[in-house]
Amino acid sequence: MSEDNRAPVTVLGLGSMGRALAEAFLRAGHPTTVWNRSAAKAAPLVARGASHAPDVRVAVAASPLVVACLTTYDATLEALAPAAADLPGRDLVTVNSGTPAGARRMAAWATGHGARFLDGAVKNVPAAVGRPDTLLYYSGDRAVFDDHEATLRALGGDTVHLGEEADLAALYEMAVGGTLLPALLGFFQGAAMVTARGLEASTLVPYTVKWLEMIGSVLPDLAEEIDTGDYTEPASSIGIFHAAVAEERLLGREAGVDASWQEPMYDLLERAVAEGRAEHSVSALVELLRRRPRAA
Amino acid sequence: MSEDNRAPVTVLGLGSMGRALAEAFLRAGHPTTVWNRSAAKAAPLVARGASHAPDVRVAVAASPLVVACLTTYDATLEALAPAAADLPGRDLVTVNSGTPAGARRMAAWATGHGARFLDGAVKNVPAAVGRPDTLLYYSGDRAVFDDHEATLRALGGDTVHLGEEADLAALYEMAVGGTLLPALLGFFQGAAMVTARGLEASTLVPYTVKWLEMIGSVLPDLAEEIDTGDYTEPASSIGIFHAAVAEERLLGREAGVDASWQEPMYDLLERAVAEGRAEHSVSALVELLRRRPRAA
Repeated sequence: MSEDNRAPVTVLGLGSMGRALAEAFLRAGHPTTVWNRSAAKAAPLVARGASHAPDVRVAVAASPLVVACLTTYDATLEALAPAAADLPGRDLVTVNSGTPAGARRMAAWATGHGARFLDGAVKNVPAAVGRPDTLLYYSGDRAVFDDHEATLRALGGDTVHLGEEADLAALYEMAVGGTLLPALLGFFQGAAMVTARGLEASTLVPYTVKWLEMIGSVLPDLAEEIDTGDYTEPASSIGIFHAAVAEERLLGREAGVDASWQEPMYDLLERAVAEGRAEHSVSALVELLRRRPRAA
Repeated sequence: MSEDNRAPVTVLGLGSMGRALAEAFLRAGHPTTVWNRSAAKAAPLVARGASHAPDVRVAVAASPLVVACLTTYDATLEALAPAAADLPGRDLVTVNSGTPAGARRMAAWATGHGARFLDGAVKNVPAAVGRPDTLLYYSGDRAVFDDHEATLRALGGDTVHLGEEADLAALYEMAVGGTLLPALLGFFQGAAMVTARGLEASTLVPYTVKWLEMIGSVLPDLAEEIDTGDYTEPASSIGIFHAAVAEERLLGREAGVDASWQEPMYDLLERAVAEGRAEHSVSALVELLRRRPRAA
C-alpha cells in the first residue's frame, strides 16, 4: 500500500501511550484522527499532521478503525458512550489495562452497539511503539485483526492474534505483566543495598540485564514442569530457595533495607517445604498460588 | 597456554554447580582435583579425568588455586577447617551464597591462615558454566584475580573483578539476585492464571521473555533517577502502578489465584501515594525500601 492510500485510523485517549500510538500511525502515513478529553494534548499531534476531532462522535465517524487507549475499560465505556450510535460499521480496538471480565463486558458493549471488537495490549514502553521487534497482542474478532493487521503493524512488528475470545489479551496482559512490579522492586531493593554502600545503582544494570536474560532462559523448562505437573527433576528446588531465606532476611537487616515486602514469598517457600515439596522444582510453587487465599 | 601446562585447580563441593565448575575446568584442560564430603559425587568427574582427593587436606595441597563451591560461608569454613594449616601459599576462591558480612568473615579467616582470597558468584545456571557469555564476578584480592584470570575464564567468558573489597561480590550477588524469586513468582502466578483457563503455561514464555527484555531496557533510566535522586520526570509514575492495584486484586479473585504475596507491594505503592509521590517515577520506591521496617 502506498502512503497515499493508507487506511485512516482514529486514536482516542492521548496519554503517553495513546500519543505514541498516534505518532506511529502518522509516521506510517495513516490519516490519523485524534481525540482526548482535554484537547491540549492533541496539539503536538496536529502539528505532525493529525486531525483533531472536537468530540468523540466526530472521532469515531472519522475512521473505520478506532483505537481506544484510555486507562481502563470503564474509562473507555464512559468516553465512548456519547458515540454509541456511531459504532455500527466501526472496528473498535481497545488498548488499556483491565481484567478479562472487563474485556468481556467491553466486547459485549461494543458488539451490542454494532461494532466489531478487538482487545489488545502493547507489551512495551511508549518509546518502543513502532519498532520492528515491539510486541503487541490482540484477541477477539479474527476478521478485525486480519482486515487491519497491516495498519496495526505500524505500532510494532511483533503483532500477534491470541485467539477469538475477546478476553485473552487481558488475561495474557495480566499473566505476563505480573512480573513487572516484583522484578522492579527486586531491582530497587538491590539499588538500595549498593547505594547504601556508596556505589551507584547504575553499576547493577548490566548484571541485572544479564540476570533477567538468565531468568528468561529457564522459563521454558519451568513452564514444561507446570504443564506436565512433574516437578520431580528440578534444576532449582524449592529447598534451595528455602535455604537462602534466612540469609536473605539477614541481608535485609545488614544492609539497612526494608525487605519486608518479600516476607510472603518466604512464607510460600516455608509452606511448600512444610508440605514436603523441598525436593520439588521451584515451579511447584504454582500449586500453592492456585489456591484461594487462606482465611485470616 | 597449551593444554600441557594449564594450571592445576581444586574444586571443593560437588553439588550441581560445583560439578559444573569442575567439568568446565576439565573441558578446558586443567588438571582438576575434586573433593566432596560424600565421595560418590566425585565418580563421574573422575571418569572424565579428575583426581579425587580422599580428604580436604589432600585437595587443598593438590593445587595452588582452590575453588570452594559449598552452600554457605559457614559450610565452607567447616569444610576447610581441617586444612587450615595447608592454606599458606594457596589462593582460595569461594563461590557460594551469603551476605557481605559472611564474605568478610570468610576473607578474614582465609587471609588469617595465610591464603590469598577472592569471593565470587556464578550469575547463571550450572548448564551455562563455561559458555562465552556466562557472567561470573569476583571481589577481593586483585592479584589473585589477575594471576588466575585465564583459569577462571574457563567458567564463563564474561568474568569481572568488581573491586578489592572482599564482600562486593556477595553484595552484588544479593543485589542482583533479588529479582529472581519475585520475577519467578510473577511468572508462576501468570501460569496459574492461564492454566486455570485451560491454556498451557508454555504459551506465556515467549511473551514473558520479551517482557523481561523490556524490563531490562528501562533499568538504565530508573538507575539514573535513583543515582541523581530526581524522580520528577517519570516514564512510569507511582500513580500509574497504584491505579492498577485495585484491578490486580480483582484479577486475583477473578482468576482463582492467591495473589496475596503481592499485597506488601501494593502497600508500598499506597504508602508512596500517601506521601505525595504519585507523580514521581516508580523508581522512587527505592526511598521507601531504604527505611527500616516499621515496628509491628
